[in-house]
Amino acid sequence: MEHRAGNGLLDRRFFLRGALAAAGVTMTTVATGRQSRPEWSAAPGHPLSKYGQPSRYESHIGREGIGSQLGTMGSGASRTPLQHLKGTLTPASLHFERHHSGIPEIDPELHELHVHGLVKKPLKFSMADLQRYPMTSRTYFLECSGNSAANLAATAPDVTCGQLHGLVSGSEWTGVRVGDLLDEAGIEDRAQWVVAEGADAARMNRSIPMDKMLDDALLALYQNGERLRPEQGYPVRLFLPGYEGNASVKWLRSLQVSAIPAMSRQETSKYTDLRPDGRSEVFTFDMDVKSVITSPSPGLDLKGHGYYEISGLAWTGRGAVQGVDVSADGGKSWAPAQLEGPVLEKALTRFRIPWHWKGGSATLMSRAYDGYGVQPGRDEHLRRSGETSIYHYNAIQAWQVDSRGASANVFA
Amino acid sequence: MEHRAGNGLLDRRFFLRGALAAAGVTMTTVATGRQSRPEWSAAPGHPLSKYGQPSRYESHIGREGIGSQLGTMGSGASRTPLQHLKGTLTPASLHFERHHSGIPEIDPELHELHVHGLVKKPLKFSMADLQRYPMTSRTYFLECSGNSAANLAATAPDVTCGQLHGLVSGSEWTGVRVGDLLDEAGIEDRAQWVVAEGADAARMNRSIPMDKMLDDALLALYQNGERLRPEQGYPVRLFLPGYEGNASVKWLRSLQVSAIPAMSRQETSKYTDLRPDGRSEVFTFDMDVKSVITSPSPGLDLKGHGYYEISGLAWTGRGAVQGVDVSADGGKSWAPAQLEGPVLEKALTRFRIPWHWKGGSATLMSRAYDGYGVQPGRDEHLRRSGETSIYHYNAIQAWQVDSRGASANVFA
Repeated sequence: MEHRAGNGLLDRRFFLRGALAAAGVTMTTVATGRQSRPEWSAAPGHPLSKYGQPSRYESHIGREGIGSQLGTMGSGASRTPLQHLKGTLTPASLHFERHHSGIPEIDPELHELHVHGLVKKPLKFSMADLQRYPMTSRTYFLECSGNSAANLAATAPDVTCGQLHGLVSGSEWTGVRVGDLLDEAGIEDRAQWVVAEGADAARMNRSIPMDKMLDDALLALYQNGERLRPEQGYPVRLFLPGYEGNASVKWLRSLQVSAIPAMSRQETSKYTDLRPDGRSEVFTFDMDVKSVITSPSPGLDLKGHGYYEISGLAWTGRGAVQGVDVSADGGKSWAPAQLEGPVLEKALTRFRIPWHWKGGSATLMSRAYDGYGVQPGRDEHLRRSGETSIYHYNAIQAWQVDSRGASANVFA
Repeated sequence: MEHRAGNGLLDRRFFLRGALAAAGVTMTTVATGRQSRPEWSAAPGHPLSKYGQPSRYESHIGREGIGSQLGTMGSGASRTPLQHLKGTLTPASLHFERHHSGIPEIDPELHELHVHGLVKKPLKFSMADLQRYPMTSRTYFLECSGNSAANLAATAPDVTCGQLHGLVSGSEWTGVRVGDLLDEAGIEDRAQWVVAEGADAARMNRSIPMDKMLDDALLALYQNGERLRPEQGYPVRLFLPGYEGNASVKWLRSLQVSAIPAMSRQETSKYTDLRPDGRSEVFTFDMDVKSVITSPSPGLDLKGHGYYEISGLAWTGRGAVQGVDVSADGGKSWAPAQLEGPVLEKALTRFRIPWHWKGGSATLMSRAYDGYGVQPGRDEHLRRSGETSIYHYNAIQAWQVDSRGASANVFA
């Protein structure tokens, strides 16, 4: 088999039908004799159901790293178990959560969204009103800007891919364009910002530039086809494609059009980036290009040497991922991965590359690039952003595979 | 507002930002005074969870028309509530079900898939073996060929869109190409068919042409990112894009390569199309082009006249949907709907068109077309297929909206 990069990385053309078999790759056992009939074939199974659930053999799979912040009333996060998912979508049940005061249980018949401030005509919308507006469906990722910050520790934390990077998820979001509501209300000439506020007890609010609101901002009512889940902002959330997750205010109750930003807690003491020179950068909305190998990764041990598919996710808040390179030798050599199409803007993109594991140690890395640049190494990221800047960590992730086939997080 | 077709159908250009507001469309109420603070904003809400569920305010939404066939042991179906979903995806929990002997509860550690028959090397695959093969992710619809057959009744059944047409759903399916396994086993020259058999008590089996198996057939292991649900064939199902659903054998245990088809019960006494001249057509796999308006539809009453979005789903088993026309006057005039992109092959496509309901009676219809033709009217379908042919019903659906805004199924 022709290798494309060091330590067994094969060319992505090995994905062409027949190439693996022609190369003599085999991962299976010759079948001899008659196939047995297990107990579950002997009698009729379970009945139909109104709302299905996973197999009990998969009940160990759930959100990971669930944790509330000490001394708070419901501030915390849970993470998508990225290493257990394939494809590009995250089921709503496994989408990461981040709340500042728990999940309010909102009656959609009573919930209202107000559009007010610097508008010619302040408006209020019931959820039934919103249902009458033109809808848009788009597949987008959502990432908390604090995602992956655990890698700022002095030593690499010994955790799973989901625990480390699972504050990112991908869904199809359907809703109404914010611009349509603002058009109807009529914005004043000096309106430059819109302050979005949630109906949770934290009154979470963020200031969003008017340009973004008139571009691709959505009032999301549906996720992956069905109505939004409570933990995603039921009955309506703001959704800002490519922006840091915190800005996509959940349980949205108010859009206040304004000439200036609110300078709220969530954009001053939090979600502001402290630079190495001591200055703070505020309103750093765009999520940078990033990728992570989800398989192999910690907890998913390789079973004997031979052929494997290295697979992962890449995304960028600025347009579409243009490519992902993979290394099996700690960054000494790289080979381009195959991107699963269609590659959509501001959405999770699945990448895959064939790999022949020879049974020795290997350091697996991925680096994604978009039209604005490539992921930095960890050292470069720290030089640029400083070690006290906890947001927007997008450095290259390395997994160390040992000779037993076990993977671990390493700084390489 | 400029109308594009009779009875209030607007041009799809009204979806351009600002067009509705400029036309003076308003569906909202002017907000006066201060917004009230509801109870759920007064105290912290619910905690984080491992595996999320819908809001209790949405608990009425579930699969519809759940029914088992009398005298059988677990043969029955449930349907996707199409009228409650927006976007293009169906959550796994709401994907339609069709079982012939209930849902087996299979231990993935013990389940095996055998590839045998006219092969050079019979193989058996554990689920761990399959995980090592190259994976593919694609978004596809799945439709039971008996979908919509209730419209063969002499009078139009008074049921919801989901009860009538909900044996179709759409998901992202991830798995291994069947062709890769057949390559490895090495098929004999005279192999023309593959008989797929499930591990359920019904031993459901179907014969699939070898060309299809070597083209886009998948062994699906994941649905919408997570592991396949039990009712979708956990731990592995066959998935045949664009084919009638019954052929995508669930709980797959055996692929027997053969020179001839098995002529099994499910392809002779069932899933065979009886023509008006008394002859039967067998192996009619491809699903024809089809569409249905999901909103408005029975149960979703209009609230006062004015602007609405007419929205629905279209699909075809042969390539991609090329367009959907909508009529509000029972087919006298038609206007082209907007298709939500990307329009993918063999996937559900969402269509939308703006409509000004004047408060009178209206008969809403949609007709989709692909590279092979357009949906027939009901009369034309009956002439062509006969009234005893219960499969592959793809005639145009009409909903009659009355002056109170209620919709009903009609034959028009």
